[in-house]
Amino acid sequence: MPLSLIENLRQRRQKLSTLIDFPAILWAGNTNPRNFPANVFPYRASSHFLYFAGLPLANAAIHLQAGKLQLFIDEPTANSALWHGETAKRDEIAAQIGADAAYPMAELASKIPDAATIAVQDAATWTQQTQLFNRMILPQIPPQGIDLELARAIVKLRLIHDEGALIELRKASAVSVAAHKAGMAAVSKCKTEAEVRAAMESVIIAHDMKTSYNSIVTVHGEILHNEHYHHPIQPGDLLLADVGAETPTGWAGDITRTFPTSGKFSSTQRDIYDVVLAAHDACIAAMHPGVEYADIHLLACQVIAEGLVDLGILQGKPEELVEKDVHAVFFPHGIGHLLGLDVHDMEDLGDLAGYEEGRDRSQRFGLGYLRLNRTLRAGMLVTIEPGFYQVPAILNSARSHYQYLINWERLQQFADVRGIRIEDDVLVTDTDADILTKELPTAANAIEELIAR
Amino acid sequence: MPLSLIENLRQRRQKLSTLIDFPAILWAGNTNPRNFPANVFPYRASSHFLYFAGLPLANAAIHLQAGKLQLFIDEPTANSALWHGETAKRDEIAAQIGADAAYPMAELASKIPDAATIAVQDAATWTQQTQLFNRMILPQIPPQGIDLELARAIVKLRLIHDEGALIELRKASAVSVAAHKAGMAAVSKCKTEAEVRAAMESVIIAHDMKTSYNSIVTVHGEILHNEHYHHPIQPGDLLLADVGAETPTGWAGDITRTFPTSGKFSSTQRDIYDVVLAAHDACIAAMHPGVEYADIHLLACQVIAEGLVDLGILQGKPEELVEKDVHAVFFPHGIGHLLGLDVHDMEDLGDLAGYEEGRDRSQRFGLGYLRLNRTLRAGMLVTIEPGFYQVPAILNSARSHYQYLINWERLQQFADVRGIRIEDDVLVTDTDADILTKELPTAANAIEELIAR
Ligand SMILES: [Mn+2]
Ligand SMILES: [Mn+2]
Repeated sequence: MPLSLIENLRQRRQKLSTLIDFPAILWAGNTNPRNFPANVFPYRASSHFLYFAGLPLANAAIHLQAGKLQLFIDEPTANSALWHGETAKRDEIAAQIGADAAYPMAELASKIPDAATIAVQDAATWTQQTQLFNRMILPQIPPQGIDLELARAIVKLRLIHDEGALIELRKASAVSVAAHKAGMAAVSKCKTEAEVRAAMESVIIAHDMKTSYNSIVTVHGEILHNEHYHHPIQPGDLLLADVGAETPTGWAGDITRTFPTSGKFSSTQRDIYDVVLAAHDACIAAMHPGVEYADIHLLACQVIAEGLVDLGILQGKPEELVEKDVHAVFFPHGIGHLLGLDVHDMEDLGDLAGYEEGRDRSQRFGLGYLRLNRTLRAGMLVTIEPGFYQVPAILNSARSHYQYLINWERLQQFADVRGIRIEDDVLVTDTDADILTKELPTAANAIEELIAR
Repeated sequence: MPLSLIENLRQRRQKLSTLIDFPAILWAGNTNPRNFPANVFPYRASSHFLYFAGLPLANAAIHLQAGKLQLFIDEPTANSALWHGETAKRDEIAAQIGADAAYPMAELASKIPDAATIAVQDAATWTQQTQLFNRMILPQIPPQGIDLELARAIVKLRLIHDEGALIELRKASAVSVAAHKAGMAAVSKCKTEAEVRAAMESVIIAHDMKTSYNSIVTVHGEILHNEHYHHPIQPGDLLLADVGAETPTGWAGDITRTFPTSGKFSSTQRDIYDVVLAAHDACIAAMHPGVEYADIHLLACQVIAEGLVDLGILQGKPEELVEKDVHAVFFPHGIGHLLGLDVHDMEDLGDLAGYEEGRDRSQRFGLGYLRLNRTLRAGMLVTIEPGFYQVPAILNSARSHYQYLINWERLQQFADVRGIRIEDDVLVTDTDADILTKELPTAANAIEELIAR
């Protein structure tokens, strides 16, 4: 039988109490106005709050000390019952999450003096935090002192997913998979990127989930963060879809597939696709506790370089090409990132979660975008997302830098490959890695079969 | 031939220059972080900026003076080309919107001294505004001095929609209509509210639009701002869907329909539905230039009171019941609001747009929620959205207040009517009002026909 929410939360705060000997106050945050105060963006509670409080409460805070949880939230007003319906009372919420005590928000002030906290993302709340603590607590400022100690302790816990987290993460994966299947089933009938996006996101909405980030659904896969959806779909296009679902309590999925809009890869598209897939498969096969994630990244670079040499696009020895960062002309980003309550998990703390203590971002062209540089341990969930892109800006500067290492004429034959990425969510275990998103095929043939024609 | 964007924007700033004799600086605003800085909510530019700049630029500002437009925006960085693709250069954007000059954002500082402005919604931008102007410019603080003069001038313009605005508003209406038809076509096969919402919003996404506000799609129509979608759909339920689309340049649609999930209204549901529809139709028929919107509201109250007396739910003379606010037990909100770039147009300025100068919100239970209190003029676009709701909190307090004016036993027979609202977007013209959303039927029979069974 799965752990109850109450027991799961109790275990998390017990673990926290073994790591810090001062109290922590975590705020939920509040809605952000869209174009006027009553028209707000969908609410997203702070991930640190969600980890210990379990529910996406708004305008609330929790006080954690020695394994005890105190909840701070105001009672719903009579007016709120009219507009938003009867909502749970403070004591009911406290019971749901196993709080040891519950108070109005105003009583939080007395708890501040010796506590640590973490800045939330919305301005109304971090302004409140800054005023109450009488020190700058802003999302743009790295935590210091006991706030930094708290952040490090939370990173330690959130890095290794517990059973309750994995149940949610598997739900997010399952719905993300279903969304991608719907996109593949719809694409041959779609006239624009927006129509494919609609087919995919409607699956997420129908499951009462949100997207965990703004979807990328584009025939211009070479634009890494393309958030436009107006391009028409032409026969022969590849469509790159990077779309993930988030469960109501905030846990994220993150999947990318690249598929031929007309249902059939061209031979050049398939050649490159298979290179990217080989990198994807090699990385996942190499994921074991004790392995460096940076080495997984370098493995992807190596496999991509080998594949591009085999195709005659790169010229030279693969190892030397990687040392010179030539692979990064086509694969300029990192192999992936942590995944959890955030799609780049704990990136609100800068590189505190992504980089092992004492490690910093590399200045190398091929490594600077690596978001994760840690030794893998069982229970860590990461994405594996190698890619191949023809980014005009990068190719232009590569023409002088890497003039003789790239066969530019040969490359021209691959003009119908703008961008390809294959991304799965992979859990490190003591045996083989567990691909949470494995129900969605990666093989070119299998993808062609999913595209209804 | 429709007006070009450039000519349309030129006319707007010409009109502004006849109303104020000082320069105005309007900021676009910027994205809001969701759970970490790189994971943002979808961008929504400030509506005042959109009105005069026409495009949803981010981190930009415009300076308006004597009919001239100066654009302030930074050039895209090389890094931005990698992640977001090649985007338009400053001069290209300036040409698109007919700017007279264009500069980097840093040069804005020199333009500040004698200018007026309006606070945007996102904290990063209003902090910038406050610092540059060296006075408090916050969305929570009503504008003062020349800022107030600017706000009043903009209200004057945005109240009466020009041809360019109406073209966009008709697009928003058309897609909103299509979304509702999709919801009706899907509902009988849907197991949850979320599934109906998915059918509706996927139409909006497929048209490369956004929802203009968080959708209400609920079998608990008595909860006015219900943003939960998890309830199962039971046979015999009414589903209330308040869903609208927003065009890429920010113009909003706003439609509500209430329909039987199994395709057939019960006789009690139809009785109440026809009362609400009678109010809806009477209000629209009465909309002419010179008529007070508050009187349109009172007309709805009167028709609803008459209908409920006819059904035996209310007891007494309709006029007297309305004077005593008994109608408001079942229809506690206003008949509607302004509609334009915002779904409650210009509500970022408080009641400056909604209320004619010198008028204030009423303290009366039946009038306090009226969002619009102006004399109607041709070119004004408003919603007409009468409703009937059985809100437990209101009914409880009405039991003592209005004990003998409501036939509580009779009311019990209408238990299968939790909430009904019928909302259309209606343009005041010199002849009859023009219902922008008229392609979506309101009659009970016509709605039943749209529900696929
Ligand atoms: Mn992704
Ligand atoms: Mn509405």
